[in-house]
Amino acid sequence: MNLDDILKSRRDTRHFTADEVPDEVIQKALQAGHWAPSVGLTDATRYYIIKSDEIKSAVKNLFLDYNKKAEELTDNPEQKELYKSLKLEAIEEAPVGLIIAYDRSVLNQFTIGTIGSNEAVKFSTVCAAQNIWLSLTEQGYGMGWVSILNYFQFKKLLDLPENIEPLGYFCIGKPATNYGNQPMLQQLHWKQKSEKAHCTEINSIHKINVSDFDLKSQNKTEIQNDFSQALQEKIDSKTKPVGSLGTLESLAFQMATVFETLNPKIINPNIVVFAADHGIANHGVSDYPQDVTRQMVNNFLEGGAAINVFCRQNDIQLSIVDSGVNYDFPTNAKLINAKIAKGTQSFLHTAAMSETELKLCFEKGKSIVKDIAKTGSNCIGFGEMGIGNTSTASVLMSLITGFSLEDCVGKGTGINEQKLLEKQNILKKAIENYSGQNKLENHLSYFGGFEIIQMASGMLAAFENKMLILVDGFICTVAYLIAFKINPDIQKNAVFCHCSAEKAHFKLLDYLKAKPVLNLDLRLGEGTGCAVAFPVLKSAEAFLNEMASFESAGVSRK
Amino acid sequence: MNLDDILKSRRDTRHFTADEVPDEVIQKALQAGHWAPSVGLTDATRYYIIKSDEIKSAVKNLFLDYNKKAEELTDNPEQKELYKSLKLEAIEEAPVGLIIAYDRSVLNQFTIGTIGSNEAVKFSTVCAAQNIWLSLTEQGYGMGWVSILNYFQFKKLLDLPENIEPLGYFCIGKPATNYGNQPMLQQLHWKQKSEKAHCTEINSIHKINVSDFDLKSQNKTEIQNDFSQALQEKIDSKTKPVGSLGTLESLAFQMATVFETLNPKIINPNIVVFAADHGIANHGVSDYPQDVTRQMVNNFLEGGAAINVFCRQNDIQLSIVDSGVNYDFPTNAKLINAKIAKGTQSFLHTAAMSETELKLCFEKGKSIVKDIAKTGSNCIGFGEMGIGNTSTASVLMSLITGFSLEDCVGKGTGINEQKLLEKQNILKKAIENYSGQNKLENHLSYFGGFEIIQMASGMLAAFENKMLILVDGFICTVAYLIAFKINPDIQKNAVFCHCSAEKAHFKLLDYLKAKPVLNLDLRLGEGTGCAVAFPVLKSAEAFLNEMASFESAGVSRK
Repeated sequence: MNLDDILKSRRDTRHFTADEVPDEVIQKALQAGHWAPSVGLTDATRYYIIKSDEIKSAVKNLFLDYNKKAEELTDNPEQKELYKSLKLEAIEEAPVGLIIAYDRSVLNQFTIGTIGSNEAVKFSTVCAAQNIWLSLTEQGYGMGWVSILNYFQFKKLLDLPENIEPLGYFCIGKPATNYGNQPMLQQLHWKQKSEKAHCTEINSIHKINVSDFDLKSQNKTEIQNDFSQALQEKIDSKTKPVGSLGTLESLAFQMATVFETLNPKIINPNIVVFAADHGIANHGVSDYPQDVTRQMVNNFLEGGAAINVFCRQNDIQLSIVDSGVNYDFPTNAKLINAKIAKGTQSFLHTAAMSETELKLCFEKGKSIVKDIAKTGSNCIGFGEMGIGNTSTASVLMSLITGFSLEDCVGKGTGINEQKLLEKQNILKKAIENYSGQNKLENHLSYFGGFEIIQMASGMLAAFENKMLILVDGFICTVAYLIAFKINPDIQKNAVFCHCSAEKAHFKLLDYLKAKPVLNLDLRLGEGTGCAVAFPVLKSAEAFLNEMASFESAGVSRK
Repeated sequence: MNLDDILKSRRDTRHFTADEVPDEVIQKALQAGHWAPSVGLTDATRYYIIKSDEIKSAVKNLFLDYNKKAEELTDNPEQKELYKSLKLEAIEEAPVGLIIAYDRSVLNQFTIGTIGSNEAVKFSTVCAAQNIWLSLTEQGYGMGWVSILNYFQFKKLLDLPENIEPLGYFCIGKPATNYGNQPMLQQLHWKQKSEKAHCTEINSIHKINVSDFDLKSQNKTEIQNDFSQALQEKIDSKTKPVGSLGTLESLAFQMATVFETLNPKIINPNIVVFAADHGIANHGVSDYPQDVTRQMVNNFLEGGAAINVFCRQNDIQLSIVDSGVNYDFPTNAKLINAKIAKGTQSFLHTAAMSETELKLCFEKGKSIVKDIAKTGSNCIGFGEMGIGNTSTASVLMSLITGFSLEDCVGKGTGINEQKLLEKQNILKKAIENYSGQNKLENHLSYFGGFEIIQMASGMLAAFENKMLILVDGFICTVAYLIAFKINPDIQKNAVFCHCSAEKAHFKLLDYLKAKPVLNLDLRLGEGTGCAVAFPVLKSAEAFLNEMASFESAGVSRK
């Protein structure tokens, strides 16, 4: 058989004979896999062989579970019926099961070829899978790639270490059919593959234009005194002792002032969660792997995270932004794409982002909020997700406020004392390594995070659009700090929704002379503090608009 | 050449001769790519050819930018030097540039094989890349995969659509060397690739434990322990760092424990406002005339008070009780009649109520709450209205807790310093005048208030009916203090909704070791603190019932 014949006759096989697969066949195939490229010579591919019926049957159950889900996702009833009739695996019949996986811990050391995207490591392993497929085909055997699995449970079931990531479960055996020398799905009329490869020549380049973001402070006209007086009189005329609604009264006053009306109404409230990855996360500053950022974005999109629950509870629109997650999300109308890059660089060694990237952050953050303002929304909450971002926030806080780093570093998602010390040391070292200018923009590009800068820029845009700005926890408040340094007037519009359990947050709120609405020891981020505090804002709005006055209710004033 | 020879001699090539690459070679290679697997027959792979020197030079600049970054990321100085000496691309020299990309918009439709991970789409494209590599090798050509790029800028530069994701830039040409028939990085001693593939057989499965909660055949404490464990595990399995929802987590734990279910739901929440007058009000302890009590009851009935507004806002049923207002209300279906008398006597001179009146208070309070429990409600908030009732509450608090009267007296509805002193003196005198026994029931009848005792009794009934008890501000907490002295178990069911601006409240909460949900400086009474805090309880309920678990969302636990 020549190469083209092998390439052409390689099939994703789901029908096998009962024939055994000799060990030599597997060994020859694995050697073929081993000849595959390996980015930076990381040699990260790992193979696991499965012959046990018990394991096969457990894997089959995982498949069945997810295949049922898949059934429900089909686009129409006919498709569903056809889908149900398809045989998509041969887990129990195939004599040999193979798991092709990669060890992502190789990325803990410097790895050539992974700076643009650390996906190169897994791509090397996919190339190995293809080599194995070709080798098996040449030897007269077949392989079927089963990817319809809950990988999280799959890893648990097989007790694979955290750092080992399987590409799927591969069924190996003697093929019982060649599907008429075409893909099975084509033979069964699921789809037709195009005759030829899709190829285009590119002849010209596209110039990248990034407009300069204006960092200058702006002045805003003061609200008229008589408006304030009329507003205070309205609040005091309500059937309650003067001042007895405490914070609700100051919130109502602020809301009316921002919306410039005695009858303020929150319209189309929106919480925007900005997600991005941080190079500093590679240095063990968090208990969670970086991959959790993208996992949580998926959780947001599927409605299962805390912020989804609280937004549903309180009728708040939720927007999710990919500011720079280290993952390629499929096109999804629910995900706002503002990706700057797949995560920042680690500021332990180099600038987190370039100046161009910083400008892009400002541009994107602004445009996202402007788009939300265009929907008529006058109230926007800011939230974030990004493994490692308390580290980024702590460093920025320390540099901007002048507080010692120790005062600005906390336990993030809940690391222990030992790890906290390590985190402090790493961040201290990063600051010591820094030789750039002592200016806000230099600090932001060197130590910043995509989601933090986009939030800061978004807050400035929210102020310009006369929106109420809901500030969430520690990281969000650092974004506010940046915005505040650029335009101090922004404080008129800012509601500090809660004081988090992250100790630096208390200090930062105090620095900003901000009084938080809630003190619930939340330390989750995602904008959850905004969402949970939102009904308190609605209470402020409601009492101002709906309560009777002493006069209207015939109640004696003191 | 047989397959193994091709697989073995395929190289990631960075050194090319100046020879042209005939179109037929490229076409044959792309056909090889086209034969690669395509998950769900999505046919998502896209190719772009680049021959323009201008484009090559722009791509080269992108490479240089990121390669500099990579340099800085090396682990030590020697490594850095070696790294700098490596040739990692041939963008400008290679006669043909190829971009291998995938169209992620295929995921907008149902796609077989992507439910476990949508990465399957890009993996198909990687398989195509490997096929192309092999085909070029067989034809005597070579390819080099350049992944050291900022993909975001790369896409912008080439004006690739949003949905097209490149795997990298591939340099194609005639190889100028075969690197001694090994990977270039190995030849240059960067690393050694292992001799053989890493392969392990897996023989046993790891049992995934799903905690089933079983109520049968256990004694009560065991059940409680098991239940508490299962409940804590449920809370900790949610996609958030352990403990990061702070007070919401303790509220959810409490709610589930009170309702005895892992899926607690608040049903028919009800806030009951008990109103009564106080003889002590005749001595100028308040700024408001006693008549305000009945005026406010009318305001409640007409829907204009703060508690009406907040109950409407949060879908809480509101019940108004006449516990003993100094006024004969016309029969009103909306007003629950539990009148003991038209106000208490002034305890400055005599007992506020008789022993019989005290018993009646306990009876009525209990029966009101039992009736509410019968509507299916499992969550009851307590509020009050009664001019002069902070005085009553202060005296009771001082007598029951032993705190000095000064510690227990505050400004109530907002009297000034002068009046506060007078209030303290009057109450001190009243206590000095008292010659009765130092027992709870005697204190209650001599210094009590109808609404306060009814609330205390109502709380005890709520506990018996396994209801969640929402405690409002200072006066309500004094009622709770009475109930707590009678049955300390009640604390399991009590939620302290807020800490009021009445200074003695803080002290009393501290005495009770109670952590209030809100700190909004409210000092209005009426149950407003319960109503404003209620959405926080709903947030606790919602996260416990609705949030995804790590397992269901496929998010890594730390």
